Amino acid sequence: MRAPGNGRGLLVVVSGPSGVGKGTVVDAAMARRTEAARRIRRSISVTTRKPRPGEREGVDYFFRSPKQFASMVRRGEMLEHAEYLGHQYGTPADWVDRQLEEGYDVVLEIEVKGAMQVRRRRPDAVLIYMLPPSWQALKRRLAGRRSEDEEVQQARLEVALQEKKQVHRYDYVIVNDRVSRAASKLLAILTAERARVSRMDTDRLLEWENG
Amino acid sequence: MRAPGNGRGLLVVVSGPSGVGKGTVVDAAMARRTEAARRIRRSISVTTRKPRPGEREGVDYFFRSPKQFASMVRRGEMLEHAEYLGHQYGTPADWVDRQLEEGYDVVLEIEVKGAMQVRRRRPDAVLIYMLPPSWQALKRRLAGRRSEDEEVQQARLEVALQEKKQVHRYDYVIVNDRVSRAASKLLAILTAERARVSRMDTDRLLEWENG
Repeated sequence: MRAPGNGRGLLVVVSGPSGVGKGTVVDAAMARRTEAARRIRRSISVTTRKPRPGEREGVDYFFRSPKQFASMVRRGEMLEHAEYLGHQYGTPADWVDRQLEEGYDVVLEIEVKGAMQVRRRRPDAVLIYMLPPSWQALKRRLAGRRSEDEEVQQARLEVALQEKKQVHRYDYVIVNDRVSRAASKLLAILTAERARVSRMDTDRLLEWENG
Repeated sequence: MRAPGNGRGLLVVVSGPSGVGKGTVVDAAMARRTEAARRIRRSISVTTRKPRPGEREGVDYFFRSPKQFASMVRRGEMLEHAEYLGHQYGTPADWVDRQLEEGYDVVLEIEVKGAMQVRRRRPDAVLIYMLPPSWQALKRRLAGRRSEDEEVQQARLEVALQEKKQVHRYDYVIVNDRVSRAASKLLAILTAERARVSRMDTDRLLEWENG
């Protein structure tokens, strides 16, 4: 009998306010040496924004022109897409599906609008919302980002306030009070979801009955 | 803000064939030094069977006469109860609720009939079914129990066969291929369940919005 928990990977959405530390927590989870950690792959988004210093095509993002982006959307090649602060972001469906078929859990760090598109198109996706331990903590963390001026920070905070009201549409909440703790919770969620009966072929589980 | 994951504990049911290693896996989970491990308490069942050597009243079981047992059932003091191989077993509701209120996750090792009673009375219970890696492995493990004669073993196998068809009524399946691995999965399930939005007071999560 093949162990349940193998097979097709999980489509995992991680949302939460800018500055909450989604990326850091996913990094910390992926750096562990457990089976669940080794199975994670980060989704690579398509975006119309310009590369920041150090960002590489096909590694950090697929950088596309607004025209190319619109054409991908039209052809139904995006699992979700959304505008955020003047730029387009989208998740390429075929790339994600290839990873899932290979058994990888694919993590999408996207905002609420995109998450809800994923929920509609893939009802079996696992939706996780990450919260800071407090609102003050979030403000401090955003203020610490030297690359952004105050106006952008304020816009991010307002988006965060609006988004957070949608938390009840998610499956799980992780409070990022400590990165290692939050990473453990993320991994626990992936492990538990793979053990869910609703994701299993129960007929196959019972096959060895007469063995 | 108090971290989600605190508060009331989880009511957890672990079922699975005799000999699959439920007790060993729960022991291994409880022996870990993580937060999730320290929160587990084993339920103490009421039973009409005689104590085995070394078993202590109020620690391993509450040993009661058939008459006392029937009276507890009549007064609605059992969360579930079932006959198994000629003896009555039941879970005392008030003892369990006290542990849950203190924030402990209470693990009940009970068979399918009892699990379904718990499901009806406590829809928020987490139901886990433990399977051996193969049917042959289960037979070998039962044969290794010197305390039981072949007839009892055969009866246990037949109960297991009937019970296993109910696996789709459970929330999770854990295959006990290796005790430490199975214990990790159990702990992951508890951690994940505590992070479920459906178990949270989302209004309280949003309270710090204007803080």
